[in-house]
Amino acid sequence: MPELTPGQFQLVYNLLSLTVATMFASGLFFFGSRAHVAHRYRPALLVSAMVVWIAGYHYFRIFQSWDGAYTVGEEGNYVASGKFFNDAYRYADWLITVPLLLVELVAVMALAKSEARPLLNKLVIAAILMIALGYPGEISDNTTTKFIWWAASMVPFLYIYAALFSKMGPVIAANPGRVGSLLALARNVLIVTWIFYPVSFLAPVLGLGGSAGEVALQVGYTIADITAKAGFGVVIYMIAAARTEAEGGLVEGAHPQPA
Amino acid sequence: MPELTPGQFQLVYNLLSLTVATMFASGLFFFGSRAHVAHRYRPALLVSAMVVWIAGYHYFRIFQSWDGAYTVGEEGNYVASGKFFNDAYRYADWLITVPLLLVELVAVMALAKSEARPLLNKLVIAAILMIALGYPGEISDNTTTKFIWWAASMVPFLYIYAALFSKMGPVIAANPGRVGSLLALARNVLIVTWIFYPVSFLAPVLGLGGSAGEVALQVGYTIADITAKAGFGVVIYMIAAARTEAEGGLVEGAHPQPA
Repeated sequence: MPELTPGQFQLVYNLLSLTVATMFASGLFFFGSRAHVAHRYRPALLVSAMVVWIAGYHYFRIFQSWDGAYTVGEEGNYVASGKFFNDAYRYADWLITVPLLLVELVAVMALAKSEARPLLNKLVIAAILMIALGYPGEISDNTTTKFIWWAASMVPFLYIYAALFSKMGPVIAANPGRVGSLLALARNVLIVTWIFYPVSFLAPVLGLGGSAGEVALQVGYTIADITAKAGFGVVIYMIAAARTEAEGGLVEGAHPQPA
Repeated sequence: MPELTPGQFQLVYNLLSLTVATMFASGLFFFGSRAHVAHRYRPALLVSAMVVWIAGYHYFRIFQSWDGAYTVGEEGNYVASGKFFNDAYRYADWLITVPLLLVELVAVMALAKSEARPLLNKLVIAAILMIALGYPGEISDNTTTKFIWWAASMVPFLYIYAALFSKMGPVIAANPGRVGSLLALARNVLIVTWIFYPVSFLAPVLGLGGSAGEVALQVGYTIADITAKAGFGVVIYMIAAARTEAEGGLVEGAHPQPA
């Protein structure tokens, strides 16, 4: 771990803590807001809640690991304590949450089951391959090895992008108005935020290292995770709410509230 | 505890942490998804949630125990810290969760109460005997003692297998289509994953030890637990959802949500 100024250490420290709060709180929102949409869209919100709760757990662990990996040195800077900083929590998190994010998206596309199931199977397998192929590169110190695994991981990555573009285009076109524009927003949030991951993976290969590189990596991954999980979940909620309204809304009195 | 390389230690460490997240998150899914199925199947999902929450608690403890049992030695490898690694958390977990897994399965078989109750009583008693008879063998260092308790524990184990095959066959046959094939899947997941436990129990008897043996045992138990609890719970949820759909689905506004 590179030596950090107090400002650098505390920026990451506070951002990680803010993320714990954001993830758990947005999970409560998604969980509770199932009651505000039609039955058909409730599983999507439940999966959104799972995604951010899993991320909240991992950010809690990353926060503890970051805090433990540093100690204050003699000159007031933060220096490595000797305890390892476990960045693998991020991979463990992605391995579970990335397939679930694709489940959320397919759920609000409201495809026929005969179309949704095979699409979801392909996307989930591609997502697991994408994360699993990235991991050996992440833990390697060799630039060539890193690059080979990065390239291998990019194959399922690009497959997911291609599948989403080809499958979502017709669904967006078939839903003019608010539902269609929100579906396009969900696709774009996913596509823009996900680009951040392979780019930051390559940062050490491209020679970006040292304290600024480490801080940029932690800040970047964290902002990308907040956007791709909590922000994406909000868009999924908006789609579910817009679809519910377009289908006639909830009938007052007919929907007892959950606790 | 055998000396481990950093890669071996961290593989188990990260897998245990991932399991904590998986168990708690799947528990929230099972708990919340009661609202998405007919009343009759909600208790099965609530029991599924209990099983994985109990497992999440125990994996949290196992993670802490694993972390505490090791320290970094002079050559960078992980060596025993002197604190004991409490594998008995696994037995405590199984003693509670294995009977509950059988409750889940019988609940979605949708037998008449006069048939379900005696079946469940027999299965639960057999499950408790199976775990309790395994424990004295697990904590013994004597190969003969281990083997005798293993053999004793296999009697209720095989009784459960026989009971499930004889009782589930007619139910599967009576439910052609998606419900029947999902019931067969649930039975097969249970039967295949459970084989892992008596086999790994025998590993030390058969001379598999050392660092590779310990890592294989921890990884194997953990993957078996994820599959037999969270994965099994997902199949139970799919059976409940398929039965709800086959019975006419949820009527918008007519199904109050649980918490």
